Parts: sequence; structure tokens; C-alpha cells
Amino acid sequence: MAERGRSGVSKNKHDFSELWPIAERLAEAARVETLKHFRAFDLTADSKAADFDPVTIADRNAEAAMRAILQDLRPNDGILGEEFGITEGTSGLTWVLDPIDGTRGYISGTPTWGVLIALSDAKGPILGVIDQPYIGERFLGGGGRAEVTGPQGTNRLGVRRTIDLNAATLFTTFPEVGNASEGAAFRRVAEQVRLTRYGCDCYAYALLAAGQIDLVIEAELAAYDIQAPIAVIEAAGGIVTDWEGGSVHQGGRAIAAATPELHKAAMAVLT
Amino acid sequence: MAERGRSGVSKNKHDFSELWPIAERLAEAARVETLKHFRAFDLTADSKAADFDPVTIADRNAEAAMRAILQDLRPNDGILGEEFGITEGTSGLTWVLDPIDGTRGYISGTPTWGVLIALSDAKGPILGVIDQPYIGERFLGGGGRAEVTGPQGTNRLGVRRTIDLNAATLFTTFPEVGNASEGAAFRRVAEQVRLTRYGCDCYAYALLAAGQIDLVIEAELAAYDIQAPIAVIEAAGGIVTDWEGGSVHQGGRAIAAATPELHKAAMAVLT
Repeated sequence: MAERGRSGVSKNKHDFSELWPIAERLAEAARVETLKHFRAFDLTADSKAADFDPVTIADRNAEAAMRAILQDLRPNDGILGEEFGITEGTSGLTWVLDPIDGTRGYISGTPTWGVLIALSDAKGPILGVIDQPYIGERFLGGGGRAEVTGPQGTNRLGVRRTIDLNAATLFTTFPEVGNASEGAAFRRVAEQVRLTRYGCDCYAYALLAAGQIDLVIEAELAAYDIQAPIAVIEAAGGIVTDWEGGSVHQGGRAIAAATPELHKAAMAVLT
Repeated sequence: MAERGRSGVSKNKHDFSELWPIAERLAEAARVETLKHFRAFDLTADSKAADFDPVTIADRNAEAAMRAILQDLRPNDGILGEEFGITEGTSGLTWVLDPIDGTRGYISGTPTWGVLIALSDAKGPILGVIDQPYIGERFLGGGGRAEVTGPQGTNRLGVRRTIDLNAATLFTTFPEVGNASEGAAFRRVAEQVRLTRYGCDCYAYALLAAGQIDLVIEAELAAYDIQAPIAVIEAAGGIVTDWEGGSVHQGGRAIAAATPELHKAAMAVLT
């Protein structure tokens, strides 16, 4: 993060004073569309895959609304969205959009799904938004910002200093995701931590950035599932990699940790 | 519920026009105390038992605040609280209080813990409150009321009409609770439903009453964990029993279902 700096305007070419208002406009547009159908009785859910993977009207409308804003304000940027795929750009920047991360939570009425928005250059995400529209809570990270705005006002994000597995709180979407060997690896870590909680979707990454939990371990992620969490957690001082310690920008198996010590300890048990 | 009726004042001796404002005052008092420490960095958590069962300052202060109100306004009623145990009464009514249901969620920063308040007579709970202070969301059931007030305003609660296991959404705190045979019984049901989600604490019962999910299956409950959910779900038209179909007012293993058909089908697989 050094070359980007912590000030409002980065040390490289990105003008965050222009980019942040656009990211927040995207979040607002997605918020309107996702809330229109949240907890509505007429909600319809298709299945994209053989297993249960609902896609709602809200999901599609939210991404379409974000794409319309980008087409207007950032026509040279690329877009990678969960619902409508890849739109190539020429600026070297790509908006990475997951209009509803946690569709299973969304259709169940829980308040832990979220809208994920990231902006990436060739090296990875440079800013990220995790937005929870029902609560009215928005976690922002990148370009000098690391903050949450919600029911308690606006507060700085920052990871906590947990370094030992036996003092750590671990969150995951397991047992809902992952194959048998991934599940077994996850359980080896779960057996060593202080507390394990399940089923929080993207909200778990927000809690890590907010200093409430220490570890998130997941599998089967797409790029749009993890890029916004990466930006928010890195801005808060944490670490996100794949299970081997490499880049997870393109998805796969992710481990997010509050400290380098904890990250290393968890990876040693995982792999 | 027939003898209590669905109007604001019941057909028996209970004066709900007096009782509801008191229940809501209790919720307000607990809200203030629980939010004081939610997501605070100085949160301390003891362990009551050998396994992980945190009790926070907020938990104790919230119950104390509710008890002070009852001592003032309802000195003849009994109190059963998670933190301070039983206070005998003479009125035949008992306030059943869980100041923070889901302490593991609370200390992790999640928005799915809740304040549980029930009022019971000899037959069981006659009113219940499930309050989520961080979201600002309150689910009420009993004495003619079945409603939620929160980010979407005030709306009526009502279960949905799901009758088949393979169309049902199931929530639970498993795999965090229950012994091996209970866990196995739970998984037999989980294998037959459309969707299973984990780790939502009392919020799962609220979602069932709000028509968002269809089944909740849990074990190791205390009376104060389940009495408020019973009142809210019954007011919304649902069913809550133990795994054998009997009363679960005193805690134990609970199954909550949207419809009698679904309740019967799930019990047949469980036991």
C-alpha cells in the first residue's frame, strides 16, 4: 500500500477525490434497487446452477443501475459484474461489482448480505465498498480512507492486534461451501481458535476491518466476491491472500487475517 | 391462543394495553445498555462455563435496567432473567428476560443478536419481544399484536405457507450447539430442505415470524432463550414445540415451523 499512501489523493495516478464519489453513487443506486425487493413476498429466485444459487430481480436491477452510472461517468473504465460479466475498458481501471453478495442470506431476510464494489488497476483493488443497505451501513477502504458509516455514525476502521490462533474469532461460510478436503482444512483451524461463527457472507470481512473479529476463511470465491473485501481490509491494516499466501484478487480460496502473525499461523494449519 | 383472542385486550384477565407499554420500556432500557458496549474495543467477556459462553458488562447492565423498571411498575410480577436468576412474584405473571441472546454474535459485532423479553402466565408466554438494537428493529407478538418496526417502518408479521421440506429454508445455531446425536438428527433434516443457514441466534425466529424462512431447529435452549420467540411466532401464525411436539416453554430442544404440515414433516425426520 506504500505507493498509494494514506492521504486523500494517492501518490500514483489515481485521483481518489474523483473516484470515491462515483463509488458511493454506485452504492446508493444498488441500495435503492436491492431494498425494493428485500423481504418482499413476491421475490422470485431462479437457479443459475444445479445447486442452490438464487439470482433475484434485485440482483440484476442493481447491477444494471450501477452499469448505467459508469457508462455515463466512466465510459473508459472496464466493468466486471456478477450478473452481466465483463465489459472491456481502455483506462486500465476495472469496476468489480457484486450487486448482492450473499443471495442466500438476502432471500432469507438476514441483514448480512451486501453490495460489493471495487475498483482495480493491473495490480489489484485500489478501493472497495461493502454496503449493507438494510442496516444503512457502509464500509469503505482505499485511497486514504478506512471508515464505516452507519447506526453509530462514522468511525475509522482498524483491525485488532490478535496474533494467536487460540485468541482468535473465525468466521466463514462453511459448511455451506467448499469440497471435503477444504472443509477438513477449515475444521483444523476452527478447532484451534477461540470462537467460530458461520454464515455471515461478506459482512464477515467488514467485521474484520472493523476490529471485531480476526480471521475469515472461505473457498469457491469469484473475483467480485473478494476484491472489495481486500481493499477494505488492507485499508484497515489487515491481510487477504489465498490459502498459500499468494494473490486472491481473481478469487478462489481466501484467508483474511488481522495480523501477519495470525495469517501465518492459520495458513500453517490450513495447508 | 383462542382464549386470548386477537384484539388489543384479551378475553381473559390480562390487560395488554397496560402490559405492552411496559414490555416496550424494557426493550428501550436494554437497547441503551447493550448499544453502549456494542463494537466497543474495551469489551470484556468472562466465561461462565468451561466452553465459550461470554457474559459482558452490557448483558448484566441491560438486565439490571429492566429489573429496575419492573420493580417500580410491576412489583408483584415474577422475573426470570439469564443473568440474575429468579425473583418470585405473586401475580401469576413472570417476565422472562434474556438481555443479550447471542452473546457470541454480540462480541463479534454481528447484527443478529437480540434482547428477548417475554411475559408468561401458568400456561406459557402471552407476549414476546425480539429486539435488535443496532439495526433498530423490534418484533412484537401477543395480545393481538404481531408486528415488526424497523428500517422499513411498521409491518404485520405473518408466517408463510410452506408445507414441504424440500421447499423450506432452515436456520439453526448448529454446528455450534447440540450433542452428536442431536447434530445427526439436525443434519437429516438439513439434507431434505431447500436451504440451510447457520449462526443467526434469535434473529432466525424473527425471520420465521416475518415470513422469510420456514424452520428453526435448535438444542440446549433455556426458558429465556425461547419464550419470546414462542410468543412472536405464535402471534404470526406459526408453531414452536420441542422435538417431540410438546411444550418447549422451559427450554431444551426446539423446533419452530411456519405451518403444521411442515412441523410434522420435520419432526418425523428429527425423531
